[in-house]
Amino acid sequence: MNFLKRSRFLFILLLSVTYGYADDGYRLWLKYDLIRDVAKRDAYARSAQFIAVNANSLVLKSAAEELQTGLRGLLGKTVPIIATAGSRSGGIVLTVNKNVAQPNEEGYAITNRSTNITITSKTDAGVLYGTFALLRQLQTAQPVERIALSSSPKIRYRMLNHWDNTNGTIERGYAGESLWKWFELPETIDPRYKDYARANASLGINGTVINNVNASARFLTAEYLEKVAALANVFRPYGIRVYLSVYFPAPKTIGGLKTADPLDPDVKKWWADKTKEIYKAIPDFGGFLVKANSEGEPGPQDYGRDHADGANMLAEALAPYDGIVLWRAFVYKADPKADRFKAAYEEFKHLDGKFNKKVIVQVKNGPIDFQPREPFSPLFGNMPKTPLAMEFQITQEYMGFATHWVYEAPLFKECLETDTYVAGKGSTVARVIDGSLHGYQLTAIAGVANTGSDRSWTGHPMAQANWYAFGRLAWDHTLSSETIAREWITMTLTKETKAVNTIADIMLKSRNIYVQYNTPLGLSRPWTGAHFAPEPWQNQSSRPDWTAVYYHRADSTGLGFDRTATGSNALAQYRPEVRQQWENAETCPLPYLLWFHHVPWMKKLSTGRTLWDELCTHFYTGADSVGWMQQQWAQVKPSIDPELFANVTGRLATQHKEAIWWRDAWLLYLQPFARQPIPAPFKKPERTLEDVKRLADIYRLR
Amino acid sequence: MNFLKRSRFLFILLLSVTYGYADDGYRLWLKYDLIRDVAKRDAYARSAQFIAVNANSLVLKSAAEELQTGLRGLLGKTVPIIATAGSRSGGIVLTVNKNVAQPNEEGYAITNRSTNITITSKTDAGVLYGTFALLRQLQTAQPVERIALSSSPKIRYRMLNHWDNTNGTIERGYAGESLWKWFELPETIDPRYKDYARANASLGINGTVINNVNASARFLTAEYLEKVAALANVFRPYGIRVYLSVYFPAPKTIGGLKTADPLDPDVKKWWADKTKEIYKAIPDFGGFLVKANSEGEPGPQDYGRDHADGANMLAEALAPYDGIVLWRAFVYKADPKADRFKAAYEEFKHLDGKFNKKVIVQVKNGPIDFQPREPFSPLFGNMPKTPLAMEFQITQEYMGFATHWVYEAPLFKECLETDTYVAGKGSTVARVIDGSLHGYQLTAIAGVANTGSDRSWTGHPMAQANWYAFGRLAWDHTLSSETIAREWITMTLTKETKAVNTIADIMLKSRNIYVQYNTPLGLSRPWTGAHFAPEPWQNQSSRPDWTAVYYHRADSTGLGFDRTATGSNALAQYRPEVRQQWENAETCPLPYLLWFHHVPWMKKLSTGRTLWDELCTHFYTGADSVGWMQQQWAQVKPSIDPELFANVTGRLATQHKEAIWWRDAWLLYLQPFARQPIPAPFKKPERTLEDVKRLADIYRLR
Repeated sequence: MNFLKRSRFLFILLLSVTYGYADDGYRLWLKYDLIRDVAKRDAYARSAQFIAVNANSLVLKSAAEELQTGLRGLLGKTVPIIATAGSRSGGIVLTVNKNVAQPNEEGYAITNRSTNITITSKTDAGVLYGTFALLRQLQTAQPVERIALSSSPKIRYRMLNHWDNTNGTIERGYAGESLWKWFELPETIDPRYKDYARANASLGINGTVINNVNASARFLTAEYLEKVAALANVFRPYGIRVYLSVYFPAPKTIGGLKTADPLDPDVKKWWADKTKEIYKAIPDFGGFLVKANSEGEPGPQDYGRDHADGANMLAEALAPYDGIVLWRAFVYKADPKADRFKAAYEEFKHLDGKFNKKVIVQVKNGPIDFQPREPFSPLFGNMPKTPLAMEFQITQEYMGFATHWVYEAPLFKECLETDTYVAGKGSTVARVIDGSLHGYQLTAIAGVANTGSDRSWTGHPMAQANWYAFGRLAWDHTLSSETIAREWITMTLTKETKAVNTIADIMLKSRNIYVQYNTPLGLSRPWTGAHFAPEPWQNQSSRPDWTAVYYHRADSTGLGFDRTATGSNALAQYRPEVRQQWENAETCPLPYLLWFHHVPWMKKLSTGRTLWDELCTHFYTGADSVGWMQQQWAQVKPSIDPELFANVTGRLATQHKEAIWWRDAWLLYLQPFARQPIPAPFKKPERTLEDVKRLADIYRLR
Repeated sequence: MNFLKRSRFLFILLLSVTYGYADDGYRLWLKYDLIRDVAKRDAYARSAQFIAVNANSLVLKSAAEELQTGLRGLLGKTVPIIATAGSRSGGIVLTVNKNVAQPNEEGYAITNRSTNITITSKTDAGVLYGTFALLRQLQTAQPVERIALSSSPKIRYRMLNHWDNTNGTIERGYAGESLWKWFELPETIDPRYKDYARANASLGINGTVINNVNASARFLTAEYLEKVAALANVFRPYGIRVYLSVYFPAPKTIGGLKTADPLDPDVKKWWADKTKEIYKAIPDFGGFLVKANSEGEPGPQDYGRDHADGANMLAEALAPYDGIVLWRAFVYKADPKADRFKAAYEEFKHLDGKFNKKVIVQVKNGPIDFQPREPFSPLFGNMPKTPLAMEFQITQEYMGFATHWVYEAPLFKECLETDTYVAGKGSTVARVIDGSLHGYQLTAIAGVANTGSDRSWTGHPMAQANWYAFGRLAWDHTLSSETIAREWITMTLTKETKAVNTIADIMLKSRNIYVQYNTPLGLSRPWTGAHFAPEPWQNQSSRPDWTAVYYHRADSTGLGFDRTATGSNALAQYRPEVRQQWENAETCPLPYLLWFHHVPWMKKLSTGRTLWDELCTHFYTGADSVGWMQQQWAQVKPSIDPELFANVTGRLATQHKEAIWWRDAWLLYLQPFARQPIPAPFKKPERTLEDVKRLADIYRLR
């Protein structure tokens, strides 16, 4: 097969080899630019004289092709693919071996003990992952002479969730339209689908939910299943299975039934038949993701049933197949007296043990909704009999869209490494998710994708790192944020050490900087509507928990949401060891303070400052720190592609402008409550509350 | 300036020169691939040894750069740019000369009489257009030794209208998101903005309305004007001025006034101040486009004023500046007894002479709404004292979106060449528009753009030809559809004669084929909602004129809308010579029959067939003709880039499937009225009316 005709990556790669600039970001971290160090290149070339593989499957064929593509770029020559190494040495051998010592099916081992570099796994997919791992070694200039690399994924289902709609829009998407061209499918196959699959496979992502959780029933029609199947055909050679978000009342909407009651026999039959139809079109279909009785979406509760009834009905439909149900725990009621923080726990904990064994309950990392910093969801650790999946948000809904540079690995890690204490010390969220704590049979992690049709995939070029980091952590959550950042920078931006250090430093600090100017000290959700503008003053909405004031509770006495025993007592959902850390306002770590306490404005904090002064310090320092990011970025100019440099420089300018806007909006709004001046050395905002409101109002105009 | 660092075109160009395939369409018709005929290349090179220009303006600099870029690709060498030719010969000289014999400012002359090729114009912009004309000569392999080319635009304002929204969506866009990245502007400048400007300048397009006519007031805020100004800065060096669609009640929405009454002094002052603010940010701002009192949009009639009052108020605000008002005539009332066909004429004709001299009334080509075939709007020719602009729709709202291949030049030409007879024979629509008939001081033509963020710009690669054709006709409406098609194919797809012929043949027939399977014999508007599916049965809507049955009037006696004296008498809006052609059902040309007549099902037509049989013949022949397009396209495979070939092949398959769907939907719906069988030799549809309805209903699911 003529790979040359198939891959856009390659052409741009050849271009880049020749000219070395004009990087529009399309190639992501799979750049495969020619290695400039001739000695190193020659050394690699000596170990890569052929690729031996019995490519009897689509996945192995992908592995061999990718290796050839990568080596063509990195080494500047075409390494032949042969069926078997025979007595030849100095090559790369890809082999599937059921007996290889790996903890699971998808693990791989790369060795160079004898005459060849050998990539071995129990499965074709494992070989593919090993191939990308070997390429990563070359991309990051690691030696391969005595390579002995071995890795297995800690979580079985590693998935992207696309909140993509039928009309091409993406809910909370900031990088263009949906990648999936529904009106052209199945006849027209965008070459980009393959590049999407390659990028995911390079990280070990093995599943993708292609449509929004606010799902359309369209996807379950014969017309659309054909389109979905066409995508599945492109993804299959990269070990990626397709999943669908389903609209719970679909049996009514498109099935003509009078009910969608999960206990109704006709409804059960409809789902069983529909599932059969899906598997006929997509034999390796992954399963269903469901948002039900959540934010207005219908669900089993409409029929007096519970979440387990709904999930189990779908699981039964999947019984004959290797598919699963991912049932989301993102639920809360429009009750002004309730604390949204507590809702998921209250609705789900008592269902533990009631779910079919094919069901995973998918839980957002925090109890509210993907805030820049949240405590972990109290569901983690509290459903020992029910596999819980982690749902992270890669797309920056609350993290600055495509204009703020926020590296999310530290956020992901912070949650994963937090100790729930549910089975004593060391019961981290990661150990809940990877199944090691409760012995879950199914383990899963999902990231709400930040990809779109923009040439750069992610809008902000630096947001590619978040897709990358999610994937790497989904595979191995013990990797450090720094390791992942350095890998990504080296593969994607520059190999020059000083620049790598500078960029890694920006990245590792970026999330805390964002929190500082956006929601410091445990503030949250100062948005309504499209989430594009600061609106901490918003007190009008169709639901109380969709206002901003619901979350921060600012009043003349102080600021913050009392979730201790004197307040909503949400803290009671955590184990005593966790509760203890947070329930005392005197000792509660500052990043969580206002999550759990209503604190008087003039209260002295551990820093020696009053709450008001501390708030001001955070907001001003955060906004100023974006200035620091700009300065640091300016220094790496000589090491970065000019187009990419200009792109990021522009976005940093927007970020700086908006950081000051966030700071001003919050402080000008809170100041009349606190009745305090902006403390020295900070200069008071140059505008009024009316000014910042007027700016926010622009985003309400159609 | 290092152009290498700035242009994406060039890099892909170099790539293409080297490798010659993987065409993703981004370069449009400005491919500049290396000329393979060495003798020809050398001949060109002898005439292009230098580029001499006194590049004292941004536009001249663009001209020189484009010429250098083009020659670098076509000739494979970098031609130096020098300030003056002096005594040198064998080069290309760009000169501005106020005394050159051209009918208008933007015309150019290219000569090679003496020692150099000279491109001369009265203005910098004219030189830029001449430069692209010279490049086009080279791209289409024309000789330049004794070149003597001279051309002037027949219309002054040649514009694209973008129906782009603030949230990145495009109303009736089928090629991705908006090109304009509002959340990143003004700090981040997408390199694509420049490539957009280059493409337009190559056609002579000199204005762009960047936002939807269903306008947001956002664009008039200081925040957004900064963003608009950033775009204007990119477009200015290519002779392109920016215009804004304005929301008529903006003085209320963002100005805090209590009214938007155009005669209110505060309102007038608000617009005057706002206009001043705009010109401060964008000194060459083009003006305003307005959709008012149309499809629910507010307007002057809300205050008891008329369209002239509204337009003139804006014109007065523009008085100190070189800007104009384009006021749309697309109006109709939700009156079940009225004929929408007549509405624009009725509302506007009596206002002739009442408009400020800075106002142009912008009229859609037909009286309804961009149907695949419409009679010309009766307004053309009937407002001799008011400049009328032509509004064509390039985006394929009613022409198959991004999956049907329809070359629109024949549609544009058909309208432009129709004789209105308003000043005797030869009073074509084109002569109304270009001002020659009534001596309009202002002349304008607008095309509703089909561009979007998709890599190929237009979704369907063949739809690029419609952008191209609109631009070329806007410059010179006397060019033939075939000339334009062949130019575009040669520059964009292939230079191989046989393939050029085959593709040109498909293109020239494609619009009639679409009409045949979509709306033959003068049918129209079989849509509701998103326009994605055939719904001739639709009789439910918030307005009678938003149903499908309003337009086709099918009943047990026959089909079609009686617009003769026995019906709505819309024909009375035309001159007698025009009326005569259409008012007699016996002699009315078949393409217009059902536009003007309610025809009995069994009526014998001029073809010898009954209406029903003729309808069937058209629908079946149309759908079968897409099969013919597929066969023809298959033959050009060896001459076409493989990625592009596969892309179009896929879309043709979709088109064929959908053509049959359209055919079946119409005929299965009409058959119970006609009570006639599908005549031989056609096979009756393989599905039922319920089947085609079910398919259409999918597009109603969210």
